[in-house]
Amino acid sequence: MNISVIGTGSFGTSLSMVLNDNNNRVMMYGRNQDTVLEINQSHTNSQYLKNIDLASDIKATSSLKEAVSHGEVLVLAVPVNAMRSVAAEINQLLKDLSKEVLIVHVAKGLELNTYKRVSEVLEEVFDPEYVSDICVLSGPSHAEEVAEKQPTTVSTASIHSKGAEIIQDVFMTDYFRVYVNNDMVGVEIGGALKNIVALAVGALSGYGFGDNPKAAVITRGLHEIARLGTKLGANPLTFLGLAGMGDLIVTATSQHSRNYRCGQMLAGGLSLEEATEKMGMVVEGVNTTRATYELAEKYDVDMPITKVLYGYLFNDISEDEAFSALMKREKTSESEGLKQLLESQIKNSK
Amino acid sequence: MNISVIGTGSFGTSLSMVLNDNNNRVMMYGRNQDTVLEINQSHTNSQYLKNIDLASDIKATSSLKEAVSHGEVLVLAVPVNAMRSVAAEINQLLKDLSKEVLIVHVAKGLELNTYKRVSEVLEEVFDPEYVSDICVLSGPSHAEEVAEKQPTTVSTASIHSKGAEIIQDVFMTDYFRVYVNNDMVGVEIGGALKNIVALAVGALSGYGFGDNPKAAVITRGLHEIARLGTKLGANPLTFLGLAGMGDLIVTATSQHSRNYRCGQMLAGGLSLEEATEKMGMVVEGVNTTRATYELAEKYDVDMPITKVLYGYLFNDISEDEAFSALMKREKTSESEGLKQLLESQIKNSK
Repeated sequence: MNISVIGTGSFGTSLSMVLNDNNNRVMMYGRNQDTVLEINQSHTNSQYLKNIDLASDIKATSSLKEAVSHGEVLVLAVPVNAMRSVAAEINQLLKDLSKEVLIVHVAKGLELNTYKRVSEVLEEVFDPEYVSDICVLSGPSHAEEVAEKQPTTVSTASIHSKGAEIIQDVFMTDYFRVYVNNDMVGVEIGGALKNIVALAVGALSGYGFGDNPKAAVITRGLHEIARLGTKLGANPLTFLGLAGMGDLIVTATSQHSRNYRCGQMLAGGLSLEEATEKMGMVVEGVNTTRATYELAEKYDVDMPITKVLYGYLFNDISEDEAFSALMKREKTSESEGLKQLLESQIKNSK
Repeated sequence: MNISVIGTGSFGTSLSMVLNDNNNRVMMYGRNQDTVLEINQSHTNSQYLKNIDLASDIKATSSLKEAVSHGEVLVLAVPVNAMRSVAAEINQLLKDLSKEVLIVHVAKGLELNTYKRVSEVLEEVFDPEYVSDICVLSGPSHAEEVAEKQPTTVSTASIHSKGAEIIQDVFMTDYFRVYVNNDMVGVEIGGALKNIVALAVGALSGYGFGDNPKAAVITRGLHEIARLGTKLGANPLTFLGLAGMGDLIVTATSQHSRNYRCGQMLAGGLSLEEATEKMGMVVEGVNTTRATYELAEKYDVDMPITKVLYGYLFNDISEDEAFSALMKREKTSESEGLKQLLESQIKNSK
C-alpha cells in the first residue's frame, strides 16, 4: 500500500522502516527541511536514529499536501499536543483532494486541558467522509530497537472494526508482531498513563528503594490505572496486555525513560522546575499526573498512588509522608473493585 | 497470636520478623540444629539472611511437635516438593494433640509428577477436622528486602472465606501490606509459573536481546499463563495483580533470580546439565516448564512461549528456531481468548 508517515521523529522513522520492509511504498512528512533532505539524500536521520541506515525506497517530503496525496494510510507520529492542529490541516487537504484515508496514530498521552484521548481528538477534528477509520498502535517499542529489527510486539485498536485488521496487515513483519485489540479506550489509556508510574518508580529508585517497593508501585499503579480505564469504558484485561503492562515494564525499569530519570532527579533533591530544565523538555508524566488526578476526582475513582505523586510533585509532601499515606491505608482486597466493574460491564453489554 | 513458622530458610525467617513486629508470638521450626541454636542464641540466621539481626523474642525449635503445639497459625515455608511429607507429619501431630490450626503456605511451584498446586496437595493431606482453612501468601517479596523492612506488598487467598482475612490481620504492618484475593487458583498459578518466563527472559538477555523482546516475552508469557490459569478456574484479573505481574517483574528483571541466571547460562552455551550443576541446585523453572507443557496439552491451551522454551530446554531447538516459531505465528487478536474464557466463567457462576 501507499503509506505516509507524518512526523520524522525516532518512532515515525523506525515505523517507516517496518512499513518499507513489509513492501509498502512509504513517504515521510517532516517540517524540518534538513531532515527531509538527509532522508532523501543520505538515507539517514542522524538526529533521531543514530547509526541506522534507511532503505533508499523511503522518501521524505516537507509538503504535507504531497504526503496526504500519496498515502492510503496516514500514520500520525507527532506529539499529543500537536495532534489537533496537524489533523485539522490534513482534514482540509483531504477535503481539497476529495480523498478518503485510514488514520493510525502512535502518540501516548492525553491532550492538555481537555484530558481527551488522542482518538477522541481525531474523531472531533476529522470529517467522517474523508476517514474510513481511526486506529491506535501502541506497545513496548523503543524506536532504536525497532530500527535494529529486534523482535517487537504491539497492539492496535480502532474505532470501527475493520481498521485495526488493516493496520495489522500493513505493519506485521517477522520482527514486528501486531496484535488486534478491540478495546481502543484501554490501549490509549494504558499508553498515556504509564508515565505516572515511571515517574514514581524513578523517584523510588532515586531514594534507594529496592525491588519489592518498585514492584508494588508498578503493580498497584497499573491496577489503579485499570480502575480508571474501566470506568471510562476499557476492558481491564487490556492492561494485562502489551499497551498496559508491556509498555509499563519497559518504561518503568529503564534508565532510558525520561519520566524515570525525572523521578530520580526529584529524589536527588532537584525541584520540579530544575528537573524540567535539566531534561530540556516537559516530562509527560508530570502533565499526565495532573490530568489523571483531575480525572480520578471527576469519575470518583480511588487512585492512591496518583494522588500521592500529585502531592509530591505539586504540594511538596515528603517521601516519608508519601509512603506513609500508601502503606497505612485500610486493609483491602486486591481486585474486587475491578472484578465488579468488569462483571457489570459484561452484563450491560448483553 | 501464637504463630509457628515451619522452615528456617530466608523467606520463613523474614516472615518471622514481620510476624514478630506485628506483636505475634513467633516460633520457628527447623531441622538443622545449628540454625536453631544460632537463632536462639545469636539471634541471627547467617546462612540465609546475612547481616540481619532477629528480635530476641523469636524462638526456634527443632521439635516439630513443639512448633505445632505452639501455633494457632502454621506458616509452611518449605520447598514445594517437601510440602506433602511435612504436612503429613503435622497432620499426625494435630491428631495426637486434638488441635485445630489455620494453615498458610508460601511456596511457589507445582508438585513434581502430579502437577498439583500446593493448596491441592495440602487439602489432600490434612484432615479437615484439624485445619480451619488453607491459605497462600504470595507476591513480589525478596526475603532480604522484607528483612530490611522495605515496603512490600503481597496477596493472600484461602479455600474458605475467612482464612485470608485472618492472615491479612496477622501479617499486615506499616512496611508489609497484605491484600486479600478471593482467587486461590490464580494466586498459586501466578507464583508457580512465573519462573518459566524468568528463564526465557534470562536466555534472551544472554543472547543480547533488548527491552522490546523482553517486554514481549514477559507480557505474552504472562498472558498464556493467564489463559491456562483461567481454564483451571482462576480469574484472569488476578494475573494483573501482585502474585501475577508483580512477582513476575521482580523475577524476570533481576539478576538475583536463579531462573533468570540459568537462562543466561544456557544462552552462553552451557548445557542444561552444566547450568544445573553450576547453580548447585535444580532450577524450578525447568521443572515448571515441563509441568506446564504437560498441563497445556492436557487442557488444550495454546501456550507458544512455554512450548518453544520446552523445545529449547529438552529438544535442542536453536534460539533462531525458537524466535522464528514465535514471530511467524498467524495473525491473532490480543486477548479475545481470555475475554471469552472470562465471560463464560461469569455466566456459569450464576
